[in-house]
Amino acid sequence: MEKKKKFAVVLAGCGVFDGSEIHEATMTLYAIMKNQGEYEIFAPDIMQHHVINHISGDEMKESRNVLIESARIARGKIRALNEFRSEDFDAVIFPGGFGAAKNLSGFAFDGPDCKVNPEVERTVKDMVNSGKPIGALCISPAIMAKILDKPVLTIGQDEGTSKAVESMGATHKTTGHGEVVVDPDYKLVTSPCYMLDANILHIAEGADAVVKEIFGMF
Amino acid sequence: MEKKKKFAVVLAGCGVFDGSEIHEATMTLYAIMKNQGEYEIFAPDIMQHHVINHISGDEMKESRNVLIESARIARGKIRALNEFRSEDFDAVIFPGGFGAAKNLSGFAFDGPDCKVNPEVERTVKDMVNSGKPIGALCISPAIMAKILDKPVLTIGQDEGTSKAVESMGATHKTTGHGEVVVDPDYKLVTSPCYMLDANILHIAEGADAVVKEIFGMF
Repeated sequence: MEKKKKFAVVLAGCGVFDGSEIHEATMTLYAIMKNQGEYEIFAPDIMQHHVINHISGDEMKESRNVLIESARIARGKIRALNEFRSEDFDAVIFPGGFGAAKNLSGFAFDGPDCKVNPEVERTVKDMVNSGKPIGALCISPAIMAKILDKPVLTIGQDEGTSKAVESMGATHKTTGHGEVVVDPDYKLVTSPCYMLDANILHIAEGADAVVKEIFGMF
Repeated sequence: MEKKKKFAVVLAGCGVFDGSEIHEATMTLYAIMKNQGEYEIFAPDIMQHHVINHISGDEMKESRNVLIESARIARGKIRALNEFRSEDFDAVIFPGGFGAAKNLSGFAFDGPDCKVNPEVERTVKDMVNSGKPIGALCISPAIMAKILDKPVLTIGQDEGTSKAVESMGATHKTTGHGEVVVDPDYKLVTSPCYMLDANILHIAEGADAVVKEIFGMF
C-alpha cells in the first residue's frame, strides 16, 4: 500500500473572532482524511491577541494561549509550530478565522504593514523551498501575500481586503463558493470559505476543493 | 417548495474535555444541512463545571460560560436554552463531549445518581411529549437514560458506561462506527461517535446516520 500523504494543519486558536474558524478547521481535517490523507495539527505557542465574547463581539478581560485553545479542535493531539519540520510533511494547510489575522499575523490591525509570526513565516518558506503545496482558506491567504513575493491568490470578493493583499504585491482573483485559485509557482491553493456569506456546506466544499487540488500536485 | 425541517442543536461548551466535542457538533450541523434541513443552536446560560487544558488534561484556574463558549462553534448565532420552544422545531440533537456529562448533567461525576440541567430536561420532555425525534451522540445518551423511562439506546461499547446507563433503567445496545440505535417509542436516535476509538470520518458517518434516521421519522 502506498504511504499516505501527510498534511500539517496550522491553527490559530479556537473560534472565528479570535482564533481559527471552527467549521473551516474541522472540514479541513475531514477533507484530508476523506481524500485518503492523514494529518498532524500545529499552532504557535503564543498568547492570543485578545479574547472575544462570540455572542456580543466584545473583548473579554481574559488571556488565552493559542496552542492550548487550538488543542480543543485537535482533541489534545497538537504540537507547537516550532516543532514543525517540512521534511516530515507533504503539504500544509492554514484554515481561516480572525486568528490568522490577529495571532498568526497582525493583518487585522495593521493591514499591508502587518508583521507575521516568525514560526508561521518559517513554515511557509520551508514548504515553498521544498516545492511542497500550501493551502490557505478564508483570510489566511493575506499571510501568504505578506510572506511570498507576488503570489496569485483569492480572499473571495471583499474589495477592501483584496486591495490590501494587492498592495502587498499579490495578484487577487475574485472567487465564489467552493472555488479555488492556484498559483503553480508556489503550489499555493486558496479558497474564500467564510470570507463570503457562506454556510457550512460551502465550507465543506471549499476545504475539499483545496485538498483535492493539493492531491493533484503530488 | 416544502418547508425545510428545522433542527435545534444543543451544545455544552466548546471542546471535548469540558464542553461539546467540536467535530461531533460541526458534523451534526453539516449533516443537517446536507440532508436539506436547517438548524438553530442553543446552549444553557450557565457556568461550565470547570475549564480543562486540552493538552495537559489539567484543570485551569478559569471560569467560562457554557453559552458564550458554545457561541464559538455557532459563530455567534446561538440562543439560551430557556428560549427553546418545541413547537418551533421538528427535531433536536445533542452532540457529545464531556460537556454533556459535566455541564448538561453531572453524569461524569455522579453516574446514575446525577442531576440533569432543568432546561435540558424540559427540552427533552417537551420533544417527547410532542412526538418529535431526539438525536443524541457519544455520551449524550446517558442524559436520556436519566430523563426518560427505560429508553433503548447506545453509548458504544464501553462496559462501565453501558452498565451505568442500564442501572438508570435503559436498555443498552452495543454498536460500532456509524451505527445507530433507534427507540421508536421515544423517537430517540443514538450513535456512539467518539465513545469509540474513532476518527473524524466515523464522526461524519455517525452524525449523518442519526440525521438520516430522524428524517425517516418525519
